Amino acid sequence: MKRVLLTISYDGTDYHGWQVQNNAVTVQEKLQDALQELMGFRPDVTGCSRTDAGVHARGFCCHLDCPESFPEKAFLLGLNSILPQDIAVREFHEVRPDFHARYDACGKNYQYHFYVSKTHDPFLSRYALRLEHPLDAERVGAFCDSLLGTHDFKGFCASGSSVEDTVRTMSECRLTLNGEQPMISVSANGFLYNMVRIIVGTAIDVSEGRLPTDCATEIFSSCRREAAGFTAPPNGLILNQVFYKEAF
Amino acid sequence: MKRVLLTISYDGTDYHGWQVQNNAVTVQEKLQDALQELMGFRPDVTGCSRTDAGVHARGFCCHLDCPESFPEKAFLLGLNSILPQDIAVREFHEVRPDFHARYDACGKNYQYHFYVSKTHDPFLSRYALRLEHPLDAERVGAFCDSLLGTHDFKGFCASGSSVEDTVRTMSECRLTLNGEQPMISVSANGFLYNMVRIIVGTAIDVSEGRLPTDCATEIFSSCRREAAGFTAPPNGLILNQVFYKEAF
Repeated sequence: MKRVLLTISYDGTDYHGWQVQNNAVTVQEKLQDALQELMGFRPDVTGCSRTDAGVHARGFCCHLDCPESFPEKAFLLGLNSILPQDIAVREFHEVRPDFHARYDACGKNYQYHFYVSKTHDPFLSRYALRLEHPLDAERVGAFCDSLLGTHDFKGFCASGSSVEDTVRTMSECRLTLNGEQPMISVSANGFLYNMVRIIVGTAIDVSEGRLPTDCATEIFSSCRREAAGFTAPPNGLILNQVFYKEAF
Repeated sequence: MKRVLLTISYDGTDYHGWQVQNNAVTVQEKLQDALQELMGFRPDVTGCSRTDAGVHARGFCCHLDCPESFPEKAFLLGLNSILPQDIAVREFHEVRPDFHARYDACGKNYQYHFYVSKTHDPFLSRYALRLEHPLDAERVGAFCDSLLGTHDFKGFCASGSSVEDTVRTMSECRLTLNGEQPMISVSANGFLYNMVRIIVGTAIDVSEGRLPTDCATEIFSSCRREAAGFTAPPNGLILNQVFYKEAF
């Protein structure tokens, strides 16, 4: 057997996230179905993280073990011809036998997309959150800057999470205006449950004046979820890239 | 009562086209459902044309009669808050009492979108047809040019259509390369059943050398559907704009 790393893209609209669940269709299950059809057995597939229901991915990574004889083309072409149109395998890399898609990830980049419009747009609403008014670039920029560096992000974590170490290092948090379709890009060495969606909800609250631009100070020091803003909906969020030390 | 013209956008993926049908969900039905909820009665709604199952629209037009007292805001905001995310009302215009969305249309513009990729892309496949190889701009350009002007387009019409006059005047037929996401834009004073999709399928056959660049000569003169290329799938097609003599 050899270990392989797959980079996949998916439109998460119709899935209950990555992780296999009872009574709900997930991306992991669809991928395992396709791998079973391709390889004749059902492999374990280990993802780089969970994603919430409705969240999208451009560069989600997962690893699995497959027979030595399986060539790259069988994965890319074979798997893509079996997978539904809303999931695609983009890259395939053979990795060392102890490589782990989750534990070896040293960071991730998420993007949150918006569009500014008085009414919803059927061609944008699937992948972006509609805003009635443009974001206040100055206020949101100041809030984003205040998140950079190493902090205890517990206040930006959904309650009910069992993670003990809630300190993370944020290397990027940036609003790109891009006309009527702004985007917030966030990179960190790790993310807590709902962390990007709470950061984005807080950014919207800051933009609209419901929270001050320096609200992160209070959220970091108090670690209280209630000090942060609302949880932005999943449809605007995309897991854009996973960082590993190895170059593939 | 006053007559109003609505311009709507829709993602046609999950609909069996515009026109109400038994046992299939259509855009017209969803719009009538929403109007009924808004106005308290179920109005007749007359579309500018039918669209096939899976075809999208950015500027579909339809007319209906509504009480004099109904303000524009009630339509735009009220209707959009009721409609599903894949249908939106973009514009509202009061028109003369005998205005007719279909009979008064003097032309339409359709766009057919492609993307060039070895594997499918979950974020593009909903609204564009995947091509393995780029289109041959010179060959497709020559074919597109040969369609301009007034011709009998019967050979570009799906069999089974009962339309008697199959002569149409094409004012635009143009390939835009746009990097990896090319597009064919077609404008005419009217379109036959499946006409754009057959033109696009023929363009692909011309691009890949299965048909000569001057094949339209034979298709026009023989009026035989078999002389033209395949019918391109609906997902790449979008009804972009309907032209009326009146300016709104």
